[in-house]
Amino acid sequence: MTEKKAQSSREKLGKLRVAMTAAGVDGYIVPHTDEFQCEYTPESANRLEWLTGFTGSAGDAVILKNKAIAFTDSRYKDQIGRQIDPACFETVIIDKNVHMHTVIVENAAVGARIGFDPMLVTPDAMKGLLQACRAKRIKLVPVPENLIDSLWDGRPAAPASQVFLFPDSIAGRRAEDNRKMVSGEIRKKGAKAVIINKPDSVAWLLNIRGDDVKHTPLALSYVIAHENGKVDWFIEPSRVPGGICAHLGSEVTVRAPQELEKAVTKLGQDAAREEKPVLLDSDRASVWFKYILEGQHAEVMESEDPIVCPRARKSEQEMAGIIEGHIRDGVALAKFTRWLDETAPKGMLTEMSVADRLESFRREDPALKDLSFPTISGWNDNGAVIHYNVKDNPEKNKKIEGQGILLVDSGGQYLDVDKKVAATTDVTITRAVGQPRPDQVRAATFVLQGFIRLATARFSQGTRGRDLYYLATEAMEKNGLICPHGIGHGVGCFLGVHEDASGLTPNEKRSKMPLMPGMLVSNEPGVYFSESWGCRLERLQRVVKDGFAEDGKTEMYRFEVVTLTPFDKKLIDPNLFREDELQWLNNYHKNVYRTLAPRLD
Amino acid sequence: MTEKKAQSSREKLGKLRVAMTAAGVDGYIVPHTDEFQCEYTPESANRLEWLTGFTGSAGDAVILKNKAIAFTDSRYKDQIGRQIDPACFETVIIDKNVHMHTVIVENAAVGARIGFDPMLVTPDAMKGLLQACRAKRIKLVPVPENLIDSLWDGRPAAPASQVFLFPDSIAGRRAEDNRKMVSGEIRKKGAKAVIINKPDSVAWLLNIRGDDVKHTPLALSYVIAHENGKVDWFIEPSRVPGGICAHLGSEVTVRAPQELEKAVTKLGQDAAREEKPVLLDSDRASVWFKYILEGQHAEVMESEDPIVCPRARKSEQEMAGIIEGHIRDGVALAKFTRWLDETAPKGMLTEMSVADRLESFRREDPALKDLSFPTISGWNDNGAVIHYNVKDNPEKNKKIEGQGILLVDSGGQYLDVDKKVAATTDVTITRAVGQPRPDQVRAATFVLQGFIRLATARFSQGTRGRDLYYLATEAMEKNGLICPHGIGHGVGCFLGVHEDASGLTPNEKRSKMPLMPGMLVSNEPGVYFSESWGCRLERLQRVVKDGFAEDGKTEMYRFEVVTLTPFDKKLIDPNLFREDELQWLNNYHKNVYRTLAPRLD
Repeated sequence: MTEKKAQSSREKLGKLRVAMTAAGVDGYIVPHTDEFQCEYTPESANRLEWLTGFTGSAGDAVILKNKAIAFTDSRYKDQIGRQIDPACFETVIIDKNVHMHTVIVENAAVGARIGFDPMLVTPDAMKGLLQACRAKRIKLVPVPENLIDSLWDGRPAAPASQVFLFPDSIAGRRAEDNRKMVSGEIRKKGAKAVIINKPDSVAWLLNIRGDDVKHTPLALSYVIAHENGKVDWFIEPSRVPGGICAHLGSEVTVRAPQELEKAVTKLGQDAAREEKPVLLDSDRASVWFKYILEGQHAEVMESEDPIVCPRARKSEQEMAGIIEGHIRDGVALAKFTRWLDETAPKGMLTEMSVADRLESFRREDPALKDLSFPTISGWNDNGAVIHYNVKDNPEKNKKIEGQGILLVDSGGQYLDVDKKVAATTDVTITRAVGQPRPDQVRAATFVLQGFIRLATARFSQGTRGRDLYYLATEAMEKNGLICPHGIGHGVGCFLGVHEDASGLTPNEKRSKMPLMPGMLVSNEPGVYFSESWGCRLERLQRVVKDGFAEDGKTEMYRFEVVTLTPFDKKLIDPNLFREDELQWLNNYHKNVYRTLAPRLD
Repeated sequence: MTEKKAQSSREKLGKLRVAMTAAGVDGYIVPHTDEFQCEYTPESANRLEWLTGFTGSAGDAVILKNKAIAFTDSRYKDQIGRQIDPACFETVIIDKNVHMHTVIVENAAVGARIGFDPMLVTPDAMKGLLQACRAKRIKLVPVPENLIDSLWDGRPAAPASQVFLFPDSIAGRRAEDNRKMVSGEIRKKGAKAVIINKPDSVAWLLNIRGDDVKHTPLALSYVIAHENGKVDWFIEPSRVPGGICAHLGSEVTVRAPQELEKAVTKLGQDAAREEKPVLLDSDRASVWFKYILEGQHAEVMESEDPIVCPRARKSEQEMAGIIEGHIRDGVALAKFTRWLDETAPKGMLTEMSVADRLESFRREDPALKDLSFPTISGWNDNGAVIHYNVKDNPEKNKKIEGQGILLVDSGGQYLDVDKKVAATTDVTITRAVGQPRPDQVRAATFVLQGFIRLATARFSQGTRGRDLYYLATEAMEKNGLICPHGIGHGVGCFLGVHEDASGLTPNEKRSKMPLMPGMLVSNEPGVYFSESWGCRLERLQRVVKDGFAEDGKTEMYRFEVVTLTPFDKKLIDPNLFREDELQWLNNYHKNVYRTLAPRLD
């Protein structure tokens, strides 16, 4: 850390404390997240980074009068230590037993007033905070204007990319029908309207995309959808080209973001008068909406974002584009692994150069619009760091030399409107350089066994991803290996690389919906040996129909792997496999070869 | 149905409608459940039966001005058809898509006032009702006095059995420590008190038992536990012998049930003044408590019954008694299966006589205090009815003759204080009479395979029952067979045969807690061929430690089956088994033989 940064944090904290006093609060919460609760945030929302220097994708800070505490999770332990000034900030690593709430309660005085920006906190998060604060009668005080923004000289402007069409023909659903579906849901609940806070839901609802943030083609904006099917879309009108307006039709009104507060207030008044609730997703929306609505005596009804579930089931047209996108991604991966196997043993590569080379293979296809997330490229011990990001840790960038294991988790955002290709990919390959040790082969084989058992599952309608989770970990756990993360998540169609509802994870929030044909999920068991090496094997798979149960009426489903790249044979001990597992593996490899060969030299 | 019963239902409905008008409501809800939300209800609470004649264990009726609707689920379809008068009641079978709420909303007029007894409804159930009723602006009106009780001539008195001690030495926990644990939980949440509505929780908290209802040794009573460790126990003082008072100590005050309302009101006042919430389990307590507390402006905090989780982990002393109880149960089962195999082929038995004979084998052990639930004894097609109860369906009582499959699900409540034996058992045996068909052997083998895969699971700390559920169904689903129910539930120690928290089911409410050493759960996969036959294989298993993961710190666990009775070899095709599965089965059978042989002729 440079002297300049240290000074700067100290100065900023001083100014923030003055602003806190002016706002009448004894503490202030600075989350990493933005007003849209997005995975990737625009620079204008990087308030935590501005204050602390910490650039990780998960974190919070709490500034008290005599103490400032920065929080992140174990993934960013080293990084936060390097990036923030320990003279300014105490660091706390969050885990199952240590929550931000409890640390606030421990450190704040009885009856303290802790300020926060209600645009940056969800109602669910508030619930947890309020409950924890009760014991010491700590008051949580919404501060209307963000205190960081008021101090941040030269804060970047909010992104303002031009919105572009995601054609109905690729989406396979007309925006009009999406709106009807939403208004139907609103009326079914006897409600007045729903507030949609998440830009990926806005994108899906309106069949549009944008370019506001890295890695996900979003236009950061809000929607209020009404019971009568009309939609208010809060986005700078200058960002919406005429063609898009025509596509949207007269039911959609583009309104400037400055009108949002007035519109929500009016909605609250109307809802209160008509005694109809307003629907709000308490896990995905800002508590700001709730406060405004309740300020008008409207009832706010907790209700999941109405886009989350329908979006999880890809249309036939989307799935066709996704499959083609994965073939193109497979071509890049084939070139990459061949290059890697040839080049790596020479000892000239680094984690960074590997990530760059993979990106350039992908960029050979003009449909590649962006990576779907920052590539994870970890050699040996760095492979054991689950969300390792070499670009954020340039001084950690390892040379790939000698014997070892390389873990590369990467993906692309593909769009080729003419060919109707739209896909988001996400794949992790683990490859041995040189001859792997027997314990490595053994562990990697158990991981692959988990992958195959999940990939070959057959299950009845109503089964959720969480019900199948243990299939992928059974072989590991039998042998004393623990997978420390969920096995899978939903993936968007030229949209977010992480979608909820269809996750293969014990987390019930992320695996609410039964698995249904058209869903696209990752299958990614992994095992990590801290400070030694890691193995994760990830492919995307879709849910397809598989006949009926013996009762003749219960639909049965199975998975079909859409990612096309072979597993490293050096990391497989065939003697540990069952016959049916080996057969699946051979068939998969044959299919990869058959599909990609015509497109490769 | 007799003419008398029909008249009687018509008359009662007429009187009830008069009472409804007097109470100012257009409709009235009559649930099956009682004031304690118990599985087995006392006769005084059988209001639904009094009104409709229906005796099933799950149901509701809604009486509107011009219509009366009785609800139950598919298990009781035939029974309700036989027991109620179709001229008086429309019958609705509840399933995933048909809820009582929606039927009320469809049938009641806009703005109708529907009355209910707030002692018989939980806050969670109210939430669902309120939400559904919103669309038609139907008002739900709590009616203070139960309208059925006001009409019920000769209503049986509430049960009033003498409370008896469940000695600390068997419980392995002192009641005093239990109370401390609860007051610790209350203080941790900054709360004033918790209301405990469930008699099985009261029994565990105070180390007492009673004899108020069939099948579960309960004393129907409520507890208010305070932050300072003091406990108010609402039960007729005459029911509590002096010895018990001494055991309870001065911290526990026995108070007459008539004082409950006054006490809850006072608690509400105190809590409001001190600005501390009162904890209430919104899924297990009566909404009546919430109304009274909120009437005093106290805050009611949703909080799970504090006994549910600690009770799930049996103490070492409890587990020792449970294991001995299962040996005794195994002796009875061994005598029974031997008798059955010898006698059944003669064609002289009936479902009822089989259930009776099994009970009499169990009763040979004086420790048997009761059956833990009504025995399910189903021959062929009756075996496909999951909760078939021959005693409630005497005219269905089948003769056991020819080739076929008999499913017997049964259990006992054992208590032998001197020998420190206390156990609740629950076991389902499926046995072929004559030579089973190949398709029966095949299906039963897949069920057994599921049982074994679950029984042999190894899993890390943090794994919940729901995570392992699919292990037990995988072999079935691969072969197109569906298990239509959860695979397992927690079981009490001389207490309820169904305990929550540790269930092996996708239902998250019933499988909240990670599996931990000391838990006792059932393992009961099954498959049912409607109108043909059914197979369920149920044994209880406990969670035990199994070393550590390779990381040296994550605890690993496995199951150990405690129920001792062999599986029917006629229903096993060894060719479908994996080697490790066969080996487990042989070891289990050897263990059953070794353990029981010394106690049998």
